[in-house]
Parts: sequence; C-alpha cells; structure tokens
Amino acid sequence: MKIGIIGAGSIGLLFSYYLNEKHQVTVYTRTKRQAELIQVNGVHLIEGSTTKARKVKADPIEFWNGDEDLTIITVKQYQLPSIISLIDKQLKMQGSLLFLQNGMGHLRFLSELKVSNVFLGAVQHGAVRVNEYTVSHNGNGGTRVAVYRGEETHLKGLIGSVPEGFQMELKEDYFEMLQSKLIVNAIINPLTATFQVSNGALLHNQYLNQITISLFEEIAAVLNIHNREEQFANVLSVCKKTSENKSSMLMDIESGRDTEIDAILGYVLEEAERKQIPAPLTRNYYNLIKGKELKRRRT
Amino acid sequence: MKIGIIGAGSIGLLFSYYLNEKHQVTVYTRTKRQAELIQVNGVHLIEGSTTKARKVKADPIEFWNGDEDLTIITVKQYQLPSIISLIDKQLKMQGSLLFLQNGMGHLRFLSELKVSNVFLGAVQHGAVRVNEYTVSHNGNGGTRVAVYRGEETHLKGLIGSVPEGFQMELKEDYFEMLQSKLIVNAIINPLTATFQVSNGALLHNQYLNQITISLFEEIAAVLNIHNREEQFANVLSVCKKTSENKSSMLMDIESGRDTEIDAILGYVLEEAERKQIPAPLTRNYYNLIKGKELKRRRT
Repeated sequence: MKIGIIGAGSIGLLFSYYLNEKHQVTVYTRTKRQAELIQVNGVHLIEGSTTKARKVKADPIEFWNGDEDLTIITVKQYQLPSIISLIDKQLKMQGSLLFLQNGMGHLRFLSELKVSNVFLGAVQHGAVRVNEYTVSHNGNGGTRVAVYRGEETHLKGLIGSVPEGFQMELKEDYFEMLQSKLIVNAIINPLTATFQVSNGALLHNQYLNQITISLFEEIAAVLNIHNREEQFANVLSVCKKTSENKSSMLMDIESGRDTEIDAILGYVLEEAERKQIPAPLTRNYYNLIKGKELKRRRT
Repeated sequence: MKIGIIGAGSIGLLFSYYLNEKHQVTVYTRTKRQAELIQVNGVHLIEGSTTKARKVKADPIEFWNGDEDLTIITVKQYQLPSIISLIDKQLKMQGSLLFLQNGMGHLRFLSELKVSNVFLGAVQHGAVRVNEYTVSHNGNGGTRVAVYRGEETHLKGLIGSVPEGFQMELKEDYFEMLQSKLIVNAIINPLTATFQVSNGALLHNQYLNQITISLFEEIAAVLNIHNREEQFANVLSVCKKTSENKSSMLMDIESGRDTEIDAILGYVLEEAERKQIPAPLTRNYYNLIKGKELKRRRT
C-alpha cells in the first residue's frame, strides 16, 4: 500500500519508520530542509540503547496530492487548518485519511471534508523527536484506530500489516476512543506541566493526587461520562505505566513550544460553556498553561 | 522603652535595626549561634547600594521572660505554637505583645492568652534576610497596627517614636486590617509561587490576570467582603507597586523552605468549610503549594 504521512514530528517520524517496513511511505515535511535531511539520512529510531535507521522517501508538504491509498495526518491540532485547506484542494482524491491528533477539537473539521473514507486514531506511544530525522521511542502503548466515515478497507490493510512492536487495535466507537484519551491528556498534561514533574508524581504526591481527583471530577461532569470509575482507573493506570516519563505538555513548556492546551482543555471548556456547567478548575488550568506559554515567549 | 523582638528572620532583623535607634531592643533568636553573630556584628541593613550596621543586644529565645515593655513577635505563623507556650509560662508578665504574623489563623491563639495588652500588626515592608545578621530592605510600605485587646499606651509609645522611613499607622479595626492584607497575600503569594514570576506578571500576563480575578472573586465570596471593588483595587495596586519583587512565597519555594500557605489559603479554606461555600480554586492553590513544598522536600 502507498502511505503518505503528513508531518515529521515525533509521531510522523515514528510512523514513517515502522510503516515503511511493509509499505511505500512518503513523509511530507513542513520545510524543504527537513525533507532533504530525511532523504539523505533516512529516519533514525532510538529504542533503549540501540539506534536503527531506515530509508524513507520524503518531500515537502507542497508535493502532497492525495495520491496515496492512505494518508496519515500527524501534525498537531493547532496546525491542522492549513492541512485541511490543502486536502480541500484535492478534489479527485480517492485515498483514505487517518487523523492522529490529540483532543477532540479536530472533529469539527472532519464533517466538512469531501473525502469518503476518514479514520481517527489515538496514539499511545511515547516518542520524542531528537532531531529532524531521529525519533526516540520511549513507551509503547500501541495505537487505537476507528472509522469516522466510510469504508474501513484501507484501515484494515494497515492494521493487518503493522510490524511487531507497533500494534494497532480497531475500536468500534471513535467518540469513546478519543474521549478516553482526552480525559487522560486533560488531567496528566496540564498538571505535570504546572508542577514540572513526571507523570508518577500525580500518584505519589498526596496534594497533587487531590488535585488530580478534583480535576477529573469536574471534567467527568462536563463531558457527562457514564463510566467514571473505569475512566479514572485508566488515568491512574497511565500515570503508573508512564511514571518516569515527562508528558508532552511538560516537554513543550520546557522547550518554549506552544502546547496542545487548546485541543485538550480548550475543548473541555467549550463543552462546559455550551452545556453551561461550571468548570473553575478547567478554566484555571487552561489559563495557567496559556499564561506559561505567554511567559516563555516573552523571556 | 524596652522592646523585645522574638524571631530574627527578615522582619525581626528589620525591626531590630530601626527600633534600636530610640529604644533598648533585645532580639531573641532560635539558635545560640545567631544571637552570638548578632552580638558580634550588630544588625546590618542593606538599602539600595548602602549597608549600615547598628549594635543590637541579642539572646537565645530561652532568655526571654516578658520583662520588656513591649515584645514584638515576628516568627511565622507556623512557628507560633512554641512561642505561645513560652508566653503562657510568664505568669506575672506586665508588658504588651505585638503580633506581626501574616494571615488570620493566629487570631485563634490570642483569645486564650493571659496577657492584658495584645496588639496586631500588618507589615508592608519588603525585606529579605541575607544572612544571620543582615537584612535587605527592598520595599517600604510601613506597618499598620491595631489594638486587639487592652490599653494602647505601649503601642502609641512605639508609633510616636519610629524613625523616619519606618512609619507606623494606627488602625481602628484589627480585623479589617488583617483581612485586607490576607486578601493581598492570598492572591499574590500562591499565584506568583505557582508561575514563578514577579508580582507584576499578575497584571501584565492576560491569562494570569484572568486567574487573579477568578481567585479574588472566590475569596471575596468566602470572606463575605463588603467593599469588593476597593479590595480588588488594593490587590492590583500592590502588584503594581511591587511589580519587580518576588513574593515571599515564591522565595520560600525557591529556597526549599516551608511557606505560609496554611496561614493564608488554609485560613480561607477553613472559612469556606465553616460557611459551606464552594472554594475549588482556593482548595486547588492550597494543594498546589503544599504539593510544591512536598516535592522540594523530596528532591
């Protein structure tokens, strides 16, 4: 199968490396320079103490024309609008699309898309981009995927062909799949970024644990979650499994990058406003992370 | 007048230096070593680029017996219980007491005291202890004092004798005086310590400003404040006047010391529980600062 991967951040590089084993992958980069670096060096994958490299075709994003059987969109949600307008220009596109963004804010873009087959995914890998062609694979929770609209042929083709150590699981309900990941992100990301701690601190520090519980309760009320206990157990389980890891939001704040707060707590806040449910903690942590972003930009 | 000063932190040293100009001051220290250092070196005061020194009598706290006309208690609120039991042992004490703690939690200790003349103060000075006998005087907002119980003779004697640049103002209502300072501390201290910013950022960073407003509104509701606009203007005015300063709580967190969070937000939280008013943000920032203290102690 021909696979296009849009975006060469940590997730784009990770998927390029693994999927190129059995498919013809082209990774589309924002800059010409990064495409050239990947063409020359291949994509490097660090796992533990070993580094492996694999040759992968790379082109700047302008070259993408929807020719591939499946295109996987790995950019962050706040970078999505420009990609959506690029997709809208490919009027005769036959291929399928798989969106891997965090949060749920991107759902609003999808209903307008003219593409027949649209899939969604929730990535549970821990990955850090080391340089423009190297990704470090730090945690392996696989990827959950689900159909948003259309025929699942290309999605099943993908699931059936993933190499060992890169499992994919088909889920029935895309909404529940994304929501479950949103809840985890909405708790762990802002709190670890606020306290500058690794994920396990939300379990071990009794005061942070209190805040974790309060924020979960508020978000569960806003999202009207029916399986609260299960979802909270899932949050704790992710904290435990990734105890020593830094969350992506903490790493974004530390590196002075913009975070995904709009896609995550911004979405919860919009839901709270729409449903007129009070959400003081959600609003507080939304403003807190936005305030940290602004502070970093100024210093 | 004979004046005893209990505690030789930043405020204790500052008051020792200034009051010794016209009074016989003895400063009482927690350690014998600090008393010796002050005896040998005097108290040093840094203001701008100049340092001045003044000879001050110093003794370890065990030597205090309530002999002075006025004893000023400058220890932090969480250090107060041991001082209170020391005071309770001076059964024949004739002198007056002036308490300078932040917050309002110390009020509960005072009603039980057997001493006739008890005064309260709210210190508006910015001061940082540089070493065991040196204090840097960074901001001069004077001191407000009020009678809690008894005869104001010794208090008036103090106010009438303060040197230039160290003004004291007598207030009618001790409760309003302490509450007004509590509100300022309850907003500025936890937020600047959370964001690790100087006080002005609460005005200039739009997101932190949003949080400032929300936290004020919640605390104003809990404390049932009648003059909201005036109190909020006061918070903003302190942020502006001390724009470049770090709050004491931020400095405590940075230095790995315990903070005064219990005396400040802990008091607000108790009031909220007593009155059964929801206070999610107060609880959040209380836990957040306690969580930071715990994190510092572990690292």
